Amino acid sequence: MKQQTRRSGGRASRHEHRASTTSTPNPAPPGQIGGLYKPLTPADIDRLITAAFTLLETLGMGEVPDGLANLFIAKGATRRPDGRIIFPRSLTEDIIAMAPRRFTLHGRDDHRSIEIGGDTVHFGTGGAAVQTLDLDSGDYRPSTLQDLYDFTRLQDRLNNVSWFTRCCVATDVPDNFDLDVNTVYALLRGTTKPVATSFTLAEHVAPIVKMLDIAEGGEGAFSKRPYVKAHISPVISPLRFGEDAVDVTFACIRHNIPISCITAAQSGATAPATLAGFLVQSLAETLASLIMVNVISPGYPMVFSNWPLVIDLRTGAFSGGGGETAILNAASAQLSNALGLPSGVASSMTDAKSIDAQYGVEKGVTALAAALAGGNLIYESSGMTAALLGASFESFLIDDEMHSAIYRTLRGVEVSDETIGLQAIEEAVLGDGHFLGHSQTMAAMERDYVYPDLADRNPPISWSEGGRQDIWARANQRAKTMLLEPDPGYLSKAADEAIREKFNILL
Amino acid sequence: MKQQTRRSGGRASRHEHRASTTSTPNPAPPGQIGGLYKPLTPADIDRLITAAFTLLETLGMGEVPDGLANLFIAKGATRRPDGRIIFPRSLTEDIIAMAPRRFTLHGRDDHRSIEIGGDTVHFGTGGAAVQTLDLDSGDYRPSTLQDLYDFTRLQDRLNNVSWFTRCCVATDVPDNFDLDVNTVYALLRGTTKPVATSFTLAEHVAPIVKMLDIAEGGEGAFSKRPYVKAHISPVISPLRFGEDAVDVTFACIRHNIPISCITAAQSGATAPATLAGFLVQSLAETLASLIMVNVISPGYPMVFSNWPLVIDLRTGAFSGGGGETAILNAASAQLSNALGLPSGVASSMTDAKSIDAQYGVEKGVTALAAALAGGNLIYESSGMTAALLGASFESFLIDDEMHSAIYRTLRGVEVSDETIGLQAIEEAVLGDGHFLGHSQTMAAMERDYVYPDLADRNPPISWSEGGRQDIWARANQRAKTMLLEPDPGYLSKAADEAIREKFNILL
Repeated sequence: MKQQTRRSGGRASRHEHRASTTSTPNPAPPGQIGGLYKPLTPADIDRLITAAFTLLETLGMGEVPDGLANLFIAKGATRRPDGRIIFPRSLTEDIIAMAPRRFTLHGRDDHRSIEIGGDTVHFGTGGAAVQTLDLDSGDYRPSTLQDLYDFTRLQDRLNNVSWFTRCCVATDVPDNFDLDVNTVYALLRGTTKPVATSFTLAEHVAPIVKMLDIAEGGEGAFSKRPYVKAHISPVISPLRFGEDAVDVTFACIRHNIPISCITAAQSGATAPATLAGFLVQSLAETLASLIMVNVISPGYPMVFSNWPLVIDLRTGAFSGGGGETAILNAASAQLSNALGLPSGVASSMTDAKSIDAQYGVEKGVTALAAALAGGNLIYESSGMTAALLGASFESFLIDDEMHSAIYRTLRGVEVSDETIGLQAIEEAVLGDGHFLGHSQTMAAMERDYVYPDLADRNPPISWSEGGRQDIWARANQRAKTMLLEPDPGYLSKAADEAIREKFNILL
Repeated sequence: MKQQTRRSGGRASRHEHRASTTSTPNPAPPGQIGGLYKPLTPADIDRLITAAFTLLETLGMGEVPDGLANLFIAKGATRRPDGRIIFPRSLTEDIIAMAPRRFTLHGRDDHRSIEIGGDTVHFGTGGAAVQTLDLDSGDYRPSTLQDLYDFTRLQDRLNNVSWFTRCCVATDVPDNFDLDVNTVYALLRGTTKPVATSFTLAEHVAPIVKMLDIAEGGEGAFSKRPYVKAHISPVISPLRFGEDAVDVTFACIRHNIPISCITAAQSGATAPATLAGFLVQSLAETLASLIMVNVISPGYPMVFSNWPLVIDLRTGAFSGGGGETAILNAASAQLSNALGLPSGVASSMTDAKSIDAQYGVEKGVTALAAALAGGNLIYESSGMTAALLGASFESFLIDDEMHSAIYRTLRGVEVSDETIGLQAIEEAVLGDGHFLGHSQTMAAMERDYVYPDLADRNPPISWSEGGRQDIWARANQRAKTMLLEPDPGYLSKAADEAIREKFNILL
């Protein structure tokens, strides 16, 4: 398996790229370059990838639906006596070679489209929170369709949510078809960024595409520039397929909906507790999804979402906030990028329920590790709390500011004669003895430094006199104000009426 | 300038080292290996180091006290017409070559000594907070000697404070000599870890060593295995010496007190606002300190503390919590390690006053960046708040848990046939379909996973029913309980009485 050179064009061209993306006065926009943190050595990477190939070659995948099994076998896979389908290494390598290394996630507004792949880093969402942290009560309650719409239009105004996967589940919509329809409707109303959802059943895909076609003004219009991505978990760990999700995959590919195939194995439960074993199994499983997608449609755009999830083995509960999550997701990003596949990982997660110091530490550590390792799409990174059970409006705002700091870190240090500026140092030293107000300082001030809004940089006395507000309280006020804004008007009145005529819209 | 190979013995031996340090059931002890995050390319490093050499060679240092200037000139430095002392590159290189690459920071209890250098990472303290976050009122008030003693004995029981620099200033001790004496006395009473302090004036050093000799049972006893390190800032940025601090340096070296020479330049104020320019000046300044120490005593143990401090250029106030701090301190660590010098950086800082999400994000991001980059001694990393103006008991406990997660991240992924465990995967897949309770899982559970105490991993309903406590509240209770413990008895009654006879002990 030839590993891809992970960085093309060298550091200078990356810096140029960064500069060109900062024509607005944002010193640290999304899409910064990661990958300078390499948790695995080249030998580790080879060994883990080889072991994953071996797993696919010897143990393979169980419970492969017949239609899919036939496609696999037609491409060179074989069936073991016990029915499992095994994949020769050459097949897996061929599939990796044909998979797109970069592709565009379209926004409904094309200015908001993002190109993913390489070592570019984008934070976005990916949750399915069943609870929402209520802005008024400060407690959790079941998430509603109105919450989803509110989250959608809130994040629409945040720079650092590069795409919006519905972050919560509208638990007040009991019918599965209505749920899927209304979820996409809420996304359509609330944002023009790239969005993502999941489909409970394959037969929901076509009607929802019909709804999107209405929004876009005609049959087939949506599929020409699809801005809804599907989150699918086709693999049930360890190493078997789930039939419903495979059916959804076929349906999405029929409608040209890009796919994020998510492996969500859990350490010590559905995957090994040893970190290396975990990474091998989870990589093999995500490769099985990649093979599936590419035997259905060679070269089809798929995010290689190998999300290592950690279990607290004392209780069996999922835990998203520890160092194990940080290192595993960083390693996953490094592995996927080494294979040249657009990497999806899960990070900025926390087990905290309060928007407190635990929340901040866990999000900061897991988000930075994944970003430095070059995770292309860092899912679950905004607004999620409580080990992904909760979503919070305040969190979206706080996380957005955190991601600015992380993008600033990723931007790194531009080293040139001009930025070193020996002459400027000499002038300051021999002149008035400081750099305040110098032209070099003034130029750097807006270009190179992020100035947060919510973070409090005042001295203790101001904090004390101001009522000792924490950032949760400040974000609460900000979120409430932002949600007073009217509907952004992304869906025309005519399209809205036409959709409501055909579908049971509950918003 | 030949750059040092930063990692000797390869990854396998590092893993062995890690394993050997985890004979207690701590899966992530201090001293993990960093350096896998390389924010600067080798070319960047060369360029920055070369520019720092050039600065020293052309602009050099101003206001060099005469005694020191003579020592510099005797080793080959020269005086410019304007009086500044300049250092030929060969002199700087010779000094770097003679400086110790590794040395031991002794604890009063030798079991608590740490070896520093290479890419090993230790978190510790370094503050001089004038305000303490009161455990009862939840507000800031002036720090006292009692606070310092309480902080000292609290951190004494925390695994991840590898050394304790007095974190706060006893503002209730107005006399400078009494302050220096009582500060060291509080450290002596409260801990047997390696400690550090600063000396207001050179003439305070000898009497304080006398006090330490009493504690150790005789004249000269302390200096044989000195467990107090001095924090000195001999350079006043940009590029001049401060006479008092230089005098303290001479006095400390006379008494064999190891030194952390701290450069604390501020971006856009006392150093360039461009990151590269900042790093060059700050590196040159710390090298000037290194030359000073080594012309006084060749090969003397010195921590190369190049701490980049960031100014919020909107207000001129120091800000420790942003992405700029993260990248600058990571780059500083990489530069120092590339020179083979024991690197000191400042991280885990925050501008937050509340122990809130801002606090957590800023600490998590800055601490992880510095650790991944291989900062040997990460100062300011425990207990500090409010842009280093505040210290907090709760913070010490929360930060300790954060550092466990960071050490866990640093420990990385051990890759071997055993940890990959293809056989175990096959057994689970073909057996009962999961890994719960398997022997491999049980072995990994305690060996490989950190289980936090303060972090809440319960579901939202438990949090709600438990009164929605945040981690600040939980840490508050824990700290109060810990402080009910009696004096640890590290100072014998006889020594205590002898010290009180000679010194104005106010505790």
